[in-house]
Amino acid sequence: MKELTIIKIGGNIVDKPDSLDLFLKDFHKVKGPKILVHGGGIMASEMSKKLGITTQMVNGRRVTDYETLKVVSMVYAGWINKSIVAALQKIGCNAIGLSGADGDIVPAVKRAPEPIDFGYVGDVNPNNINSALLESLLGRGICPVFCAITHDRNGTLLNTNADTMASAIAIAMSKDYCTQLVYCFEKDGVLLDKDDPESIIPLITRKNYEKLKEEGVVSEGMIPKLDNAFAAIENGVSSVTVKHATNLGNNKGTLLK
Amino acid sequence: MKELTIIKIGGNIVDKPDSLDLFLKDFHKVKGPKILVHGGGIMASEMSKKLGITTQMVNGRRVTDYETLKVVSMVYAGWINKSIVAALQKIGCNAIGLSGADGDIVPAVKRAPEPIDFGYVGDVNPNNINSALLESLLGRGICPVFCAITHDRNGTLLNTNADTMASAIAIAMSKDYCTQLVYCFEKDGVLLDKDDPESIIPLITRKNYEKLKEEGVVSEGMIPKLDNAFAAIENGVSSVTVKHATNLGNNKGTLLK
Repeated sequence: MKELTIIKIGGNIVDKPDSLDLFLKDFHKVKGPKILVHGGGIMASEMSKKLGITTQMVNGRRVTDYETLKVVSMVYAGWINKSIVAALQKIGCNAIGLSGADGDIVPAVKRAPEPIDFGYVGDVNPNNINSALLESLLGRGICPVFCAITHDRNGTLLNTNADTMASAIAIAMSKDYCTQLVYCFEKDGVLLDKDDPESIIPLITRKNYEKLKEEGVVSEGMIPKLDNAFAAIENGVSSVTVKHATNLGNNKGTLLK
Repeated sequence: MKELTIIKIGGNIVDKPDSLDLFLKDFHKVKGPKILVHGGGIMASEMSKKLGITTQMVNGRRVTDYETLKVVSMVYAGWINKSIVAALQKIGCNAIGLSGADGDIVPAVKRAPEPIDFGYVGDVNPNNINSALLESLLGRGICPVFCAITHDRNGTLLNTNADTMASAIAIAMSKDYCTQLVYCFEKDGVLLDKDDPESIIPLITRKNYEKLKEEGVVSEGMIPKLDNAFAAIENGVSSVTVKHATNLGNNKGTLLK
């Protein structure tokens, strides 16, 4: 089976030009077909602020009203996505920037307004992803770069969680590829002791994971991230790695299998 | 030889949701492989104004400083491009939104700062366009939708004239396709009497054109547009039509051959 690597980066790398350049060089060195999925929340919040749009938050999550949808589409699909593509082209990686609407690759469903109305937010179902166009691009040596904007097939763009988008694409592609998913985030991995950055747990299996949750080692924000990762593994993805973007080129990080 | 239609629309349609929807329905009806190239200057100017960026103009042309480059990338490649793609997907046209950086399809050269420094503005050479990826997309029944943002292959995005971008793509594609280029603009065609909207000249040949220029019938802003059109014809494009976007579905307009 052909191999495929899907890497997700968040705002903490995307919003820092120097870190992003270093990351993209490491990304270019990843062998074989690969896909990049990026976030960019910090820049979107700054742009909203400049435009005088109040970012409404419910339970720590952004509500995407129509003006915010415009901002995230502009920032994610416009400036960030095309800047990444141009930077990859510079170093010889033939990238193509995509949203989920392009080629109808990642259609989504607007989230129901109950119990909380998050506005123009889309949820993705891996079964609806059109992997044929992605396979064709990868076959031509092209590297797809996704922002987390999708569409509802009824003319409306939707703001989507970049972690979920990466996991859905990985699940869909795992039918034809031995797919590795890498989540880059602000820590070096899952830590045994949250105050000791060196205490990275190198490997977590499903069985370990339940135990780590019981013991409270894995808690709060890490739970949905790892739940998401294990869901990907249970749906065909070979492995998920959680690591800092600066460690893409080395083995530092937590492997989930 | 396979047929291909390339249609360029400007801000006067892109910025009006109702007109845009009607146009996209007519566009979807155009038979055979097709490519859309869009502008969007009005919305970019409004966004610059909201962000407090002063649009510097020299000889009636926008200077693209770095902040303006960000705005045009966000507005053209982000909101407008993805909104058009989502609207086309809704009516069953499998569109893919692209900038010139994507797949390195339209590389450009930053314009020399002498005699006037227009900033991050890119000029396109039809000989450098990578038509293979476009052909592959068209062959899959996909409709490429281009915003007029290109890149310099050195990591920098460049603002590009949408008329020129459409003409360069048309010239490049005319090696493998019998290519028709349609420029939609704010008038119904080239008028014999500029005060009589019904006095559309149905056909202009190169020989006619020189005469019309001598007689002053074609003057001012129309000259660069038609020069551009005849340059396309002399470089392999089968025909160029100049018409109002609302007339895409009928014969009203000026055919240049």
